[in-house]
Amino acid sequence: MLSLKHVIEECQYGRVVASNPLIGQYTTSAIQDLLTSLFGIASPSSKRELIRLILRILNLEGGRKDQLQSRASPSSPMKPTDMAKEGTEMTEETEHMIEKNGAKETETVVSAGDAKEMRAVILSGFGGLNKLRVTKKAMPEPQEGEVKIRVKACGLNFLDLMVRQGNIDSPPKTPLVPGFECSGIVEAMGENTKGFEIGDRVMAFVNYNAWAEVVCTPLDYVYNMPDDMTFPEAAAFSMNFVAAYMMLFEVANLREGMSVLVHSAGGGVGQAVAQLCSTIPSVTVFGMASSFKHEAIKDSVTHLFDRNIDYVQEVKKISPEGVDIVLDCLSGENTGKGLGLLRPLGTYILYGSSNMVTGETKSFFSLAKSWWQVEKVNPIKLYEENKVIAGFSLLNLLFKQGRCGQVKTVVEKLFSLYNQKKIKPVVDSLWALEEVKEAMQRIHDRGNIGKLILDVEKSPTPLMASDSTETSEAGEEEEEHEGDNDNKERMPFIQ
Amino acid sequence: MLSLKHVIEECQYGRVVASNPLIGQYTTSAIQDLLTSLFGIASPSSKRELIRLILRILNLEGGRKDQLQSRASPSSPMKPTDMAKEGTEMTEETEHMIEKNGAKETETVVSAGDAKEMRAVILSGFGGLNKLRVTKKAMPEPQEGEVKIRVKACGLNFLDLMVRQGNIDSPPKTPLVPGFECSGIVEAMGENTKGFEIGDRVMAFVNYNAWAEVVCTPLDYVYNMPDDMTFPEAAAFSMNFVAAYMMLFEVANLREGMSVLVHSAGGGVGQAVAQLCSTIPSVTVFGMASSFKHEAIKDSVTHLFDRNIDYVQEVKKISPEGVDIVLDCLSGENTGKGLGLLRPLGTYILYGSSNMVTGETKSFFSLAKSWWQVEKVNPIKLYEENKVIAGFSLLNLLFKQGRCGQVKTVVEKLFSLYNQKKIKPVVDSLWALEEVKEAMQRIHDRGNIGKLILDVEKSPTPLMASDSTETSEAGEEEEEHEGDNDNKERMPFIQ
Repeated sequence: MLSLKHVIEECQYGRVVASNPLIGQYTTSAIQDLLTSLFGIASPSSKRELIRLILRILNLEGGRKDQLQSRASPSSPMKPTDMAKEGTEMTEETEHMIEKNGAKETETVVSAGDAKEMRAVILSGFGGLNKLRVTKKAMPEPQEGEVKIRVKACGLNFLDLMVRQGNIDSPPKTPLVPGFECSGIVEAMGENTKGFEIGDRVMAFVNYNAWAEVVCTPLDYVYNMPDDMTFPEAAAFSMNFVAAYMMLFEVANLREGMSVLVHSAGGGVGQAVAQLCSTIPSVTVFGMASSFKHEAIKDSVTHLFDRNIDYVQEVKKISPEGVDIVLDCLSGENTGKGLGLLRPLGTYILYGSSNMVTGETKSFFSLAKSWWQVEKVNPIKLYEENKVIAGFSLLNLLFKQGRCGQVKTVVEKLFSLYNQKKIKPVVDSLWALEEVKEAMQRIHDRGNIGKLILDVEKSPTPLMASDSTETSEAGEEEEEHEGDNDNKERMPFIQ
Repeated sequence: MLSLKHVIEECQYGRVVASNPLIGQYTTSAIQDLLTSLFGIASPSSKRELIRLILRILNLEGGRKDQLQSRASPSSPMKPTDMAKEGTEMTEETEHMIEKNGAKETETVVSAGDAKEMRAVILSGFGGLNKLRVTKKAMPEPQEGEVKIRVKACGLNFLDLMVRQGNIDSPPKTPLVPGFECSGIVEAMGENTKGFEIGDRVMAFVNYNAWAEVVCTPLDYVYNMPDDMTFPEAAAFSMNFVAAYMMLFEVANLREGMSVLVHSAGGGVGQAVAQLCSTIPSVTVFGMASSFKHEAIKDSVTHLFDRNIDYVQEVKKISPEGVDIVLDCLSGENTGKGLGLLRPLGTYILYGSSNMVTGETKSFFSLAKSWWQVEKVNPIKLYEENKVIAGFSLLNLLFKQGRCGQVKTVVEKLFSLYNQKKIKPVVDSLWALEEVKEAMQRIHDRGNIGKLILDVEKSPTPLMASDSTETSEAGEEEEEHEGDNDNKERMPFIQ
């Protein structure tokens, strides 16, 4: 049997785990029993998996568990309830973030109460979660051709974790404000800039700087939202649905009767892919997801597999010929597997490399392994096998390759599908800016189903009992929504 | 100055060239002058090119030149006129082929006049032109599920040269009858086989064995021809148009306003690509072709470049952003160039490796160069650049990967476009089975504009004066069609 101490020592969040009163006193097998009884999770198969599960418990403990089960419904995306009132290390960290507001020299600091300041998440340098903090920054003003947006909600993507680690191609300099998408209300326009009215409800792409109370971004990246769409939905919509649509219908050529394999079926892109596939007749979707998500998302895909199994064999059992489209956000060995699974004329699309993120900080080992050990492809082999391999990066398309016009057309098509109630973004959970670390940890652990949203107007986790009243409304429904079945209710999936 | 003798010694067809009374007496510079005055061809830049030109003259001399310029019109594909009455070595070779009919032990020989025999082209082993001969073989009979077709016309593709050289993936055993496509009349059906009537005019794919008077092929590979389509058109249609259509519309996703680059714009696939692009509004086609074809095909593409120039630079001058689709039948260094030319979300498709064929026989050097030096592609680079790379092999799709159903749907769409007069196969020239060597040389030298057809009912080149009457009709128009301008008339290109 593993020594829990040994497990904890290996864990990057050792301090958090060891000092947690709930965890510290248990042996590994006791932890496993606890996991099973509390969450129905089977025994982890490795130390690493056990660590992940412990971290998940820590995130869930003290109210956060309730948060995952409360108030979610198709018409009103789930709002998290209070953080625990117990002073766990995690909440102490959050407190630390808030207290340090404005303390960094590299940030432009303005005194509290000044209308020329705003809150923003700052990444002070590439690295772990401790590089993130919320501070006050000078209010940006729109240049010619730009729209100034009072932000309501921001999307959090796996890519943001890679940015935090500096694990991307030509990263910008730090300090920076992360975030590539938001929704909000138009507050001003640059000189000679037309196309929007002050007060317009908009969804926008931003080349960094989205995680703030106010952003300015060029006109071409801003879209009027459908009337029925909420701000969290809009922030959950832009990157995931545009990427899913372009991959399925512009890079590949999804048509009736085809089959699609998607990794991370429970994630934001995965759920968008599943919904878009359901708009075409007789499309078979093979999805991979952690077992604990299966109950919640099983209706969104045709065949669902555990993410740890040998999916190549499982897919071949069902469809010996393979599949028409493989969407891979993992990279590494999955590239070769995906190509191998393609039917003739099938398309493999790499749209992320989340396998590069193996820990909290950048791992040169995993980076090198992913980058260099991705099987390079000989075009003549593609010729013999009639196969297609593609890469898709929406950010590069928008911000390096200037394809705003094409993306705008896609957004219009997607809004039309939304208005016809054929698609609807799945929001996993809402977080205050000050909770960005916990939100990142959740996406890192693949704990989410659908999209994580930073709700700019949400109060940070209450640190004192007196603050808890602000979010007590959600807490009231706690009991009604307890239990596994609630996961189903949280999924506003279009049948 | 090169010594002609030296040139000739290097030539694989030395015997032919040296003994030719027309060529043997000239010096290299005199040959060059002759080329220029007769055909308007500029001085060759290398010994190898000079050899090619000399061979072309040999092929053209004594009537063959006229053949290339006579009788072609949109409604009646060109029929070649007589071969020369002069006893050149080339016609002696043809005579040799015919005399040797039935002399090979490996072939099933039946006595002349027997209804159970048929003529066929036989490849006795992989290698040069001398491995090809016409012989009589036992008449094939249809198995269950097969259709027996009395062949009228067969298509000749660059791929057939690669087959001849054994320059393909897992080549079959020799002796074999080459050829993958034909048109003709249904003569019988296998047991329990329905779907066609005896007498139906059909177009068919065959997994080898097309170059014969009779073929049997499975039902799934046979299609009823449109009423207005001639047999040579049908034989020119199947592979080229199906490949062009599937590449443009199923592998890539050709839409309004896009741009397409195609190598060998004057070839069968190239002309099919150009025509199919003209069915979509505002598609820009960049084509490469030998200069002497430019006058003939200039109206079929938007921008036409000489095949020997640096097309990357030329395309970028016109379209700095590059192109949306690159169709490459050459492979080798063109793969890297093609990928480099792609716009974001653009698709590079490799559909042949004709650069592998550098001489008459298989060259391991060129094979290795093409295969191993094709730049392998890192999927993560595709991700960063938003690019797509694909391979397309219609033969593998049909005969190894069993996608007959999908191809049938494509054939139906193409026949519809043909009936609407939006597309029309371009036939370069018709050849008797016994002229297959000359036809292959012509495609090897890239002398063709559109498709080379083996006309099964065409009499072989007349060897005696008395035979010439059979084809004198075409010869009568000789003078009317002389000169460069006739190339334009030969191009039944849809505007």
